[in-house]
Amino acid sequence: METSKNPKPRVVIVGAGFGGLEAAKKLACQDVVLTVIDRTNYHLFQPLLYQVATAALSPADIAGPVRAILSKCKNVEVILAEVESIDVNARKVKLTEGEVDYDYLIVATGARHSYFGHPEWEQLAPGLKSLEDAIEIRRRTLMAFEYAERASDEAARKAAMTFVVVGGGPTGVEMAGAIAEIARYTLTKDFRHIDPSQARVILVEGEPLVLAAYPEDLRRSAMKQLADLGVEVRAGIHATNLSDQGLQVGDEFIPCRVKIWAAGNTASFVGKSLGVPVDRVGRVMVNNDLTIPNHREVQVIGDLANFPHQTGEPLPGVSPVAMQQGRQAARNILMMIDGDEPQRFWYFDKGSMATIGRNKAVADLKMVHLTGIPAWFAWLFIHIIFLVGFRNRIAVLFQWAWAYFSFNKGARLITRNFQSEQRPPT
Amino acid sequence: METSKNPKPRVVIVGAGFGGLEAAKKLACQDVVLTVIDRTNYHLFQPLLYQVATAALSPADIAGPVRAILSKCKNVEVILAEVESIDVNARKVKLTEGEVDYDYLIVATGARHSYFGHPEWEQLAPGLKSLEDAIEIRRRTLMAFEYAERASDEAARKAAMTFVVVGGGPTGVEMAGAIAEIARYTLTKDFRHIDPSQARVILVEGEPLVLAAYPEDLRRSAMKQLADLGVEVRAGIHATNLSDQGLQVGDEFIPCRVKIWAAGNTASFVGKSLGVPVDRVGRVMVNNDLTIPNHREVQVIGDLANFPHQTGEPLPGVSPVAMQQGRQAARNILMMIDGDEPQRFWYFDKGSMATIGRNKAVADLKMVHLTGIPAWFAWLFIHIIFLVGFRNRIAVLFQWAWAYFSFNKGARLITRNFQSEQRPPT
Repeated sequence: METSKNPKPRVVIVGAGFGGLEAAKKLACQDVVLTVIDRTNYHLFQPLLYQVATAALSPADIAGPVRAILSKCKNVEVILAEVESIDVNARKVKLTEGEVDYDYLIVATGARHSYFGHPEWEQLAPGLKSLEDAIEIRRRTLMAFEYAERASDEAARKAAMTFVVVGGGPTGVEMAGAIAEIARYTLTKDFRHIDPSQARVILVEGEPLVLAAYPEDLRRSAMKQLADLGVEVRAGIHATNLSDQGLQVGDEFIPCRVKIWAAGNTASFVGKSLGVPVDRVGRVMVNNDLTIPNHREVQVIGDLANFPHQTGEPLPGVSPVAMQQGRQAARNILMMIDGDEPQRFWYFDKGSMATIGRNKAVADLKMVHLTGIPAWFAWLFIHIIFLVGFRNRIAVLFQWAWAYFSFNKGARLITRNFQSEQRPPT
Repeated sequence: METSKNPKPRVVIVGAGFGGLEAAKKLACQDVVLTVIDRTNYHLFQPLLYQVATAALSPADIAGPVRAILSKCKNVEVILAEVESIDVNARKVKLTEGEVDYDYLIVATGARHSYFGHPEWEQLAPGLKSLEDAIEIRRRTLMAFEYAERASDEAARKAAMTFVVVGGGPTGVEMAGAIAEIARYTLTKDFRHIDPSQARVILVEGEPLVLAAYPEDLRRSAMKQLADLGVEVRAGIHATNLSDQGLQVGDEFIPCRVKIWAAGNTASFVGKSLGVPVDRVGRVMVNNDLTIPNHREVQVIGDLANFPHQTGEPLPGVSPVAMQQGRQAARNILMMIDGDEPQRFWYFDKGSMATIGRNKAVADLKMVHLTGIPAWFAWLFIHIIFLVGFRNRIAVLFQWAWAYFSFNKGARLITRNFQSEQRPPT
C-alpha cells in the first residue's frame, strides 16, 4: 500500500449487511478514512432470522454490534443514521441530520419485501427482514394459539389455528416448516382446550414447485419433506387478496389469523437517488466491475445491485453474492487509489441450501445434491461457521442442541411495546 | 390427600411471578382444578432484569413460558389474560373478556413502580418491572452514546453522557453499577468522537446511605464500591422535578438525557378490588395466615400483601418472601380442603444480597456479612441456582463467563417497534 502526502482518501460504506460489512472488514486498517453508515446498530445474520420469528433463538444470538465488530482499526468510524439520498455529483451522502463527503462510495442498502402495489397488506402479513419483524411474527404466532385456547366460537378457533405463509422461497419454506414444528412438537402438552398439533400450516407458492432457484429434484424433495411435516402446499396459485379474516387464494378463501409474507422484494430507495438506471424492482444496473455508469467512484453491491454480466440473469439476492461483491468492491477501491482500474467481478457459486425442519433440508452443492439428514447437518454446519462472532456461535449451538434433544424452543416470549403492557393482550 | 366424590375444588391463582408460580407448582397434580392467570405468557426472573436493561442478557435468558413450566399436570390450566377485578362475594375473577369462578383464590399480582403522584414522569424516566421496560432502557442507554458521538453541541453531548438513576435500593444500585461498567469497559474502543469512560453515572438516594434495608456496614461498603466504579452518589436528597432536559435534585439541576426510575412501588390495582383495607401504597392488609378479613378462601401474597405480623413492619417486597408465602398459601388451601384451619405464616429470612459490578457486591447472610469478591460470587451462585429452568441456567452461565473474560456484553441491540424502523433513530 502506497502512502501519499495528500489527505487520505475518504471511503464511505452505506449499509452494514453482509456486503457492506465484508467491504468494511477489508478496508479497515488500510490507508483510508473509512465511514460505515447503518440505520441499526447491529449486523444481522439474516439467514437465521426465521428462527427468531419462531422462538428458537433470541435476537442477540444472531446480531452483533457493528461498532464492536469494527472497533479495532482506528481509521473506521461507524455512524448510526438514516440515509436520505446520495448526491453523486457533489459526492455527498445526505443523512436525516447532516451529510458525509466521500471520495469512494459503496452502496449496500439491500432490499425490503414488496407487496406488489398493496402496501396496506404489510400490517396484515408482516414480512421478515428485521429483528422487529421477527419479534412481531413471533408474537402473532404464539398469540394465535393463546387466542384459540380461549375462543368459544369454533370458526374463530379454526382460523386462529391456521397459519398461511405466502411465498415458497427459502424464507417461506423455513417459516412454514418451523411453525409446523412448533405446533407438532413444542406446544403439544401446553394447552387444555386445543390440540396444537391440529394446527394447519399452508404455504402458497405461485410456481408449481417451491424453491424456484433450486434444481428440480431438490424442489420435489422439498415438497415431499414439507408434506411429511404436515405443511399443505398450495402451488401454482397466487394470493389475490388479504383481510383481517383471511386470504383469497384463487377461488378459495382461507380463514386465518396469522399471515406471513415471503413473496417478493423491492430494492432500497437509496438506489434510485443515484440517478442511474434501475430495474423493475429498483435494483441498480451495475457495470461488470460493480461501479455505476459515469461514476466509477461509486459501487453498488448485494441485494441492491442487478448484476447480469455473468449469465444474462441478475445474480440472486443471497449472502454469498453480497459478501463476494463486498470484498471485490473493497479491492477495487484500493486499486483505484493506487491508480489502477477496477476489476471485473466474477461470482463463485458454491451452492445453496434451505432447511425445512428437524432433520429435513435440501442442499445444492453443485457437485452433489443432498436431502434430509445429510442436507440438514450440512446446513447446520455452514450456518454455525458463518455466524458473526465466537460468542454467537457458542450460544446458537447450545440453543440448537437443547432444542434438538428436548423438542423445546427457548425464546417463547410474547413481548409488546414499551408501556403497552397495561392493555389486554389482543 | 383425601379424594371426595364432590366436584374437585376450583383453585385460581392470579399472577405467575415468584409467589404465584410457587403456589402453582405446589398445587399442580393435586386433587384440585387449578387455573393460573397471568397477563404475560412467561414467568420473569426479575432479579436479573437489570442485566437485560444493560445489554448483558437477552429477554429469553431470564424468562420461561408459564405453560411449559406447568404443562406436566393435566389439572392445571393457564390463561393469558388481564384481570379487571375480583368479586369476593360472587367468588369470581373478572377478566377483560369473560370471568373465572373459584372456590379458593390466591392473588399475587405484585407491584409496579410509583412516581409519587407524577405519572407523567414514567415516559421521562422508565422504571424496571417488565421485559418491555428493560428493552426500552437498553435502547435509551445505548442510543445516548450514539447521540453523544454525533452531537455537535458540547452541552448536549455532556447531557447525553450523563445517566441518572433515581432510587438507591438494590435495583437502583445494580443499574447504576451496570451502566458505569458498560461505559468504562464495554464501549471504550467503539467510538471516535467521545470517550465513553468519561460518562457520568449519578445515583440519587433520599437516605444518607444506599440500600436502606441492609445493615449499616454493608451500606457503607456499597457506597465505597459504587465510588470505586465511578458512580456519583447524591445521598440524603430527593429528585423534585424531571424534564426532557434533566432533573432537579435539591438546588442542583442535572442536565441528562437518560433517567431511570427505581424509587418506589405501588401495589397492583387488583388488590383494591378485594374490598378489604389496603395500606398507603395499595398493599392488602392480610391476616397472619395470608387470608383476607371475612374471606378465608382468598389469600394475598408477595408484593401485593402487607404482612406486618412478624416484626410489626411489613415484610419486604423480595422474591424469598413471595416464594415462601406462595408455598404456604398452597398448603393452606390443601388444609382447608381437608377441613383444617389455614396456618400462620412465618418468614424465614436467609438474608439478602445486591450486586454492584464486576467483583463488587454486598451480601447480608445474617450470620456473616460479605463484601467485594466473596459477596459477588455468592450472588452469582444463588442467582444461577434459582433461575427458571435448566436451559436458562446454562445460557446465563455462558453469557456471564463470556462477559467476565471478554469485558463484552452480548446483547447490545437497539431495537424499536414493529414498522417504526423506517424512521430515523432519534
